Amino acid sequence: MPLKKPIYATPRDAEQAMYDAMNRADLEAFMNVWAEDEEIVCILPNGPRIVGYANVRETWRHILEEGQRFIINPTNTHSLPGMLMTVHSVYETITLAERNDGSSVQVLATNIFIRSAVGWRLLVHHASATLATPDEEIIKTLH
Amino acid sequence: MPLKKPIYATPRDAEQAMYDAMNRADLEAFMNVWAEDEEIVCILPNGPRIVGYANVRETWRHILEEGQRFIINPTNTHSLPGMLMTVHSVYETITLAERNDGSSVQVLATNIFIRSAVGWRLLVHHASATLATPDEEIIKTLH
Repeated sequence: MPLKKPIYATPRDAEQAMYDAMNRADLEAFMNVWAEDEEIVCILPNGPRIVGYANVRETWRHILEEGQRFIINPTNTHSLPGMLMTVHSVYETITLAERNDGSSVQVLATNIFIRSAVGWRLLVHHASATLATPDEEIIKTLH
Repeated sequence: MPLKKPIYATPRDAEQAMYDAMNRADLEAFMNVWAEDEEIVCILPNGPRIVGYANVRETWRHILEEGQRFIINPTNTHSLPGMLMTVHSVYETITLAERNDGSSVQVLATNIFIRSAVGWRLLVHHASATLATPDEEIIKTLH
């Protein structure tokens, strides 16, 4: 009998569960964070748009089963909260676990969550490469 | 006396005004589409996160005043509608106007709109390079 799926009380809870699941390469936990919807969207750096629960699952099954371990460290969350939909803009520092040189890549992710009958769930994950670091962010510092 | 700002009745109207303004290099029209908010976010390919109305304006003033003309053709809109917030995922085909060889770059954009007292406005524009074309999209075709 499958375990009951967790309910995330806040977008932040859902997001933390998402990054935890990525870092543990736990496909089931990762997919639990997503809304079970044919309309969900996942975009990974340079990749195509992936639409629909089954397709997102299949893509991440490949990623997590490749055995290439990585650690994603989300920082500098900028939150745009709403009653039914909330947007988080996040810097991700991604380090390949097998590298010992400490090198990492910077990614910017837009994570969009919706409030459903079973708590907050992920609706869109759009991740893309950035040459900038959070320190270089253009935020209220231009003038 | 400044003209009254347009009111966009739908996210689609706001999005169309956004792309029209980009293609006409019309900074005022472009900024009219955005929510006048210190929290708005704009991410351009490989660039930093730009937060806040004044910073977004300043960045786009540079882009549009550089004189490098481009044509952005949005296609394959995938819409995630909500009462107060709506997400559009869009392929952008960007062609440099001065090139005659027809070459273009593909970008994927996540455009997030909010419904405000003055109609729908742009809250987030996250654009990033993709090596995929809409034809290669992973959508209900994996199985």
